[in-house]
Amino acid sequence: MGNRLYIALVHHPVIDKNGQTIASAVTNLDLHDIARASKTYGVKGYYIITPLDDQQTLVRQILDHWTTGVGGIYNPRRREALELIRIKPTFGEMIDGITDAEGRRPQTVVTTARGRRGNLSYSRLRAMVGQSTPLVLTFGTAWGLTDEFMASADFILDPLIGAGDYNHLSVRSAAAIVLDRLLGESF
Amino acid sequence: MGNRLYIALVHHPVIDKNGQTIASAVTNLDLHDIARASKTYGVKGYYIITPLDDQQTLVRQILDHWTTGVGGIYNPRRREALELIRIKPTFGEMIDGITDAEGRRPQTVVTTARGRRGNLSYSRLRAMVGQSTPLVLTFGTAWGLTDEFMASADFILDPLIGAGDYNHLSVRSAAAIVLDRLLGESF
Repeated sequence: MGNRLYIALVHHPVIDKNGQTIASAVTNLDLHDIARASKTYGVKGYYIITPLDDQQTLVRQILDHWTTGVGGIYNPRRREALELIRIKPTFGEMIDGITDAEGRRPQTVVTTARGRRGNLSYSRLRAMVGQSTPLVLTFGTAWGLTDEFMASADFILDPLIGAGDYNHLSVRSAAAIVLDRLLGESF
Repeated sequence: MGNRLYIALVHHPVIDKNGQTIASAVTNLDLHDIARASKTYGVKGYYIITPLDDQQTLVRQILDHWTTGVGGIYNPRRREALELIRIKPTFGEMIDGITDAEGRRPQTVVTTARGRRGNLSYSRLRAMVGQSTPLVLTFGTAWGLTDEFMASADFILDPLIGAGDYNHLSVRSAAAIVLDRLLGESF
């Protein structure tokens, strides 16, 4: 593979139903589903971003169960996927960690379902994934990333468009689809 | 849209970790995630297949909460998606129901992650979706559909291939990716 694509799932800063900035709770199946898709498509690391101590502890307990606990014995393939997960309190600390590991700062790509066109197409990002600059593909939980957060990213990926004006995919589904568009075989 | 694509999520007959035929339990987020992807991509109906009375009751309770209960008021977009769900005790009864509604028997397409190539490519199925024959795209829960069940289908779709030999996607992720391949915009 040799790609340098990372995924970040951001729990703060995101917005709630009313547009207020919040720190969302971690959803167990966000860990499993996106880790399994990341492993399937060859993603280098999957970062859970949450500033909340209790949420960090929860994630660690789930990971311990599946990587060093009985879950890993029961289902070794699940362990292989969840071993991709790292926990960071802030997006900035994740960027620092990737910069240290890769020897250069990653470019950041944010995703959104909020209508407007981005400044990055899937075909262009697919080409970028094969190049040497590390990339962080970023998904928001709850009602999505804040406008301020999105404005600070290097790129905004075009939203996924379906059959009509309904585009309320779960973040698990959106991450799977985007990975397939970037790294799936041609068919 | 005008497509006649249906999705079936089968809880029996599927196999467990050891290859034994079982009836699996319904997973709440399978309902939500696959309904939301179905609505996004214009799927005509999403069938939950389970012969177990208690599991049928559980699904009905979840649907009632989100379609006629307080959930539908809290989140109307979720209601629109979950309204696509129908419950049937057997795959055959679903086929009969679709045949009645459409005036012709649907063709059945099964999905599998168990290695071997199918007899139907994504590009060919994408062309079939636009034609007049109704189609049922079928996913298994647990460790997948039984061999006997797959052998009885009209078509076996090629498995999703990622970056290497790891292909342990959740059924929620697999359904989202397949729908995007069949009905997503070209990019």
